[in-house]
Amino acid sequence: MERMMTAGDQSPSDRKSVVGVIGLGSMGGGMATALMRAGFEVVGCDVSSELVGKLIAAGGRSAGSPAEAASGADVVISVVVNAAQTESVLFGENGAASAMRPGTVFVSCATMSPEIARQLGARLEATGRHYLDAPISGGAARAAQGELTVLASGSAAAFDAARPALDAMAARLYELGDAPGTGAAFKMINQLLAGVHIAAACEAMTFAAKQNLDLAKVYEVITASAGNSWMFENRMPHVLAGDYRPLSAIEIFVKDLGIIQDMARSERYPAPLAAAALQMYLAAAGVGMGKDDDASLARLYAQLSGATLPES
Amino acid sequence: MERMMTAGDQSPSDRKSVVGVIGLGSMGGGMATALMRAGFEVVGCDVSSELVGKLIAAGGRSAGSPAEAASGADVVISVVVNAAQTESVLFGENGAASAMRPGTVFVSCATMSPEIARQLGARLEATGRHYLDAPISGGAARAAQGELTVLASGSAAAFDAARPALDAMAARLYELGDAPGTGAAFKMINQLLAGVHIAAACEAMTFAAKQNLDLAKVYEVITASAGNSWMFENRMPHVLAGDYRPLSAIEIFVKDLGIIQDMARSERYPAPLAAAALQMYLAAAGVGMGKDDDASLARLYAQLSGATLPES
Repeated sequence: MERMMTAGDQSPSDRKSVVGVIGLGSMGGGMATALMRAGFEVVGCDVSSELVGKLIAAGGRSAGSPAEAASGADVVISVVVNAAQTESVLFGENGAASAMRPGTVFVSCATMSPEIARQLGARLEATGRHYLDAPISGGAARAAQGELTVLASGSAAAFDAARPALDAMAARLYELGDAPGTGAAFKMINQLLAGVHIAAACEAMTFAAKQNLDLAKVYEVITASAGNSWMFENRMPHVLAGDYRPLSAIEIFVKDLGIIQDMARSERYPAPLAAAALQMYLAAAGVGMGKDDDASLARLYAQLSGATLPES
Repeated sequence: MERMMTAGDQSPSDRKSVVGVIGLGSMGGGMATALMRAGFEVVGCDVSSELVGKLIAAGGRSAGSPAEAASGADVVISVVVNAAQTESVLFGENGAASAMRPGTVFVSCATMSPEIARQLGARLEATGRHYLDAPISGGAARAAQGELTVLASGSAAAFDAARPALDAMAARLYELGDAPGTGAAFKMINQLLAGVHIAAACEAMTFAAKQNLDLAKVYEVITASAGNSWMFENRMPHVLAGDYRPLSAIEIFVKDLGIIQDMARSERYPAPLAAAALQMYLAAAGVGMGKDDDASLARLYAQLSGATLPES
């Protein structure tokens, strides 16, 4: 509250809305940019002082902890990697939960299991703050342009409190249910498909290389045929260029397909394609490609088969 | 030759080109329609007298065997299911090969392994006829509209002889190489992806059903997200409608993913996603769904998990 009172010389009625952004990586940093462009004041924190410096250079303010970022905020947006980090942001040392004003909303963007999203939501809402389960997709470029897709669920009060900030960040806001967990479940369905499609794209493209087909022609034909997928179209240019610098890393799908296997096992649901894909991501991480681009699965298939792929 | 001479009262210079179409099912019948609309005379044969009757009603002529369909034709197009049928059409009893005029072209549209396409091509070309390896994709509706995609390879002479007929049938003609086998290889890459994507779509959609998500909303969200594929978008409406009447049957991917596993094993190429998908198509065929629509994999996942899917 004190931070908010000292934020400027505006009267309460015309002061800028303040958004706390916790996690300033490629997604969170882009979202902060989009929020500032839309007129919000952003208070951000991150363990990386380099990322905090970027926020300040772009016109934001820095906070030393989630609690500090949350204390004066109208909306707190958490853009961390997983459920454990989200729990720490909320309830760990200097966590956001107890620092948030009652009635404000915590927007959780990390991909996690629906069950944990439900638990985190219930725990925060018991303290009189709102929780919006709001996983995102779209990548860093669309984050900075305010054109993310948000798969959200939560109470009407959570949506009402979050909507101005969400409108500044999202090209598409799906309102998927009235309680945390449903947004997470939709995101996991998307991740199952995305993870399998990347693996299938790498399996097929490297199989084409093994047969000495013209890979640029394979890309042209497949993207115009029934075998196409969003991921084939998006990731295979990395393979054609031999460029495996990480836009999204192998470890992301080690995590997300791992969550899917945990969910599926718990629900007695057999998911053999997702299971096969997970094994390939695990093997890619196992041979040392975990932090490389997820299209590195193609390099793994090449190692396993003697196929030759383009080099950068 | 005699058939051609008696075909009408046109002089040789203005007579219609004659195309023999062998196999008048949903694809071949549609292609015959497109060819006649473009001004070709079509002589067709099929084991089904009902399908031959449809061709006659549409203005085509019937032939009692591949040899008879081929004997007066400028181009012979074979639209059968697999390599074995193609070999029989060419070299079986009353086969097309020896009946074709030297210098004319046999256009083979069946999906088969590149190795067998090479063998059939070499065997026909040794007799002085041309062979175009020309698998197709696009479905029955686009076949009838003359808007197929054709993935072709063969000699310049084979392309030259086939091009007028191909132009009438195809919205996209890819010229992929100068010998039979390359077209087949491209088609198999497409089939690997298509087969995996249908299985992944059914795995994901039924997993959503198991979690009691709104499946129409899942379709809306996924088709606008990075998890989308051509097959998800095309096949999942069958699941939402509970309509498993076959547009393309489970058995097609039992065949095509089987060819891929044979190719991959022969080339020492591990293809775990295609292998996992094949097991699901085999299980669907094993429980009696082999002739149903390939989206029936969703019903298989539902059987295996207790999920409830929409019924028609």
